Amino acid sequence: MRHILIVGIGAGNPDHMTMQAVNALNQAAVLFVPKKGESKAQLADIRRDIIGRYVTDEKIRVVEFDVPVRETRDRSYDRSVDDWHAAIAEIYESLIETHVGETEKAAFLVWGDPMLYDSTIRIVERVKGGGRVSFDFSVIPGITSLQALTAAHRIPLNLVGKPVEITTGRRLAESVPEKGRTTVIMLDGEQAFLKVEDPEARIYWGAYLGTEQEIVISGRLHDVRDEIARTRAEAGAQHGWIMDIYLMRSGADFDE
Amino acid sequence: MRHILIVGIGAGNPDHMTMQAVNALNQAAVLFVPKKGESKAQLADIRRDIIGRYVTDEKIRVVEFDVPVRETRDRSYDRSVDDWHAAIAEIYESLIETHVGETEKAAFLVWGDPMLYDSTIRIVERVKGGGRVSFDFSVIPGITSLQALTAAHRIPLNLVGKPVEITTGRRLAESVPEKGRTTVIMLDGEQAFLKVEDPEARIYWGAYLGTEQEIVISGRLHDVRDEIARTRAEAGAQHGWIMDIYLMRSGADFDE
Repeated sequence: MRHILIVGIGAGNPDHMTMQAVNALNQAAVLFVPKKGESKAQLADIRRDIIGRYVTDEKIRVVEFDVPVRETRDRSYDRSVDDWHAAIAEIYESLIETHVGETEKAAFLVWGDPMLYDSTIRIVERVKGGGRVSFDFSVIPGITSLQALTAAHRIPLNLVGKPVEITTGRRLAESVPEKGRTTVIMLDGEQAFLKVEDPEARIYWGAYLGTEQEIVISGRLHDVRDEIARTRAEAGAQHGWIMDIYLMRSGADFDE
Repeated sequence: MRHILIVGIGAGNPDHMTMQAVNALNQAAVLFVPKKGESKAQLADIRRDIIGRYVTDEKIRVVEFDVPVRETRDRSYDRSVDDWHAAIAEIYESLIETHVGETEKAAFLVWGDPMLYDSTIRIVERVKGGGRVSFDFSVIPGITSLQALTAAHRIPLNLVGKPVEITTGRRLAESVPEKGRTTVIMLDGEQAFLKVEDPEARIYWGAYLGTEQEIVISGRLHDVRDEIARTRAEAGAQHGWIMDIYLMRSGADFDE
């Protein structure tokens, strides 16, 4: 039977690749690589570097595909994402049918870990559920930007024995601010950190983590938030895109 | 200056090792390896396998050290952990002073990722803050059991656009059960999942993740919780130890 490998390739540093991911790519007959527009050409370069460095068999084919843009007009967020996934599922189905022989393996290369704020797993499930092309699949974990963030700042994610919440900029207002609790914000286009009131909160921010352009800033939120906003705007303008992530917390270990 | 590398070595599968971790171990003059008692001899074997497989320079020394037991009598949880860290910090300080030359690197091997419910980073900070031995340090991320869990179950960690909370068995009762929200429980000696009322909740459980003994169970919590408790008890008795982790959630993508 066909087998689809959903492979986490790390957060931007080619050395984030695990042995398991390297082995997976080398078992595949085809590597599926999304094109994400010229603005993120640098990411495409890193992915090309990963393939060039670790995929040793020259017979392995690389197939690039276009990812449709998500339509947001006249529909809810959930509806917008659902429609978008349906469109991508059609593309995946056609890729698998066209390029993967009946006993071959193929790999989708996913930034970070496919489990975290990525939809490759659920879209592959959707194609499988559709039943028009039969295959099995497996998931290979990868280093996420969250791990690159804590490693760059050399900090534990959680305070001793305390919880961590991972959420989005859109939902930050709904999360419970509580001393000792760590909040990680991913996918924050709206700079939700600027609206946080807590005068005790500390922030650990990073952009382009794992890459040569990596920038990190940390400090008391109210002291450094303007610097982060300015740095974010300047770097975004310079590179044409930005990927960033941060965590915030107040309190310290053992001050219960 | 001395340099301490805190290296995540993955959740139990030697193939979780990243290229960055392999490079870090090979830069070190000394590898510090905790002894954790005979009950976890299997973990020691996996770590020995990792070193044997990836550390190519035979001049690299391996130094094992005993980890003291945490005293819990007559003190709060926080105090108990704080005292324990102080005792481990003394051991680290002595290890660094005794075994690491003034321009050498040394590595602490940490299961999973040093950022997540592990105290190596904060204990190394404590030694550094003590000022009696001078060194710099860096952190190398690794695949965590949480990532091994979601990969084994082939599921995304979060529902589309929804938050995730990571907490401990001790604190599960404090976490907010909410449709669509995912809760991950680590370090659960008390099987807190048995007390969860939500009839809609699904659970994805795994033990010995990444190893040959890996066991996974998933389903509606109230349907499978007894099977998980039984499997957990049997496996723990058979191996002499158990490391497990699970996530729970109710709701599905797009059912807002």
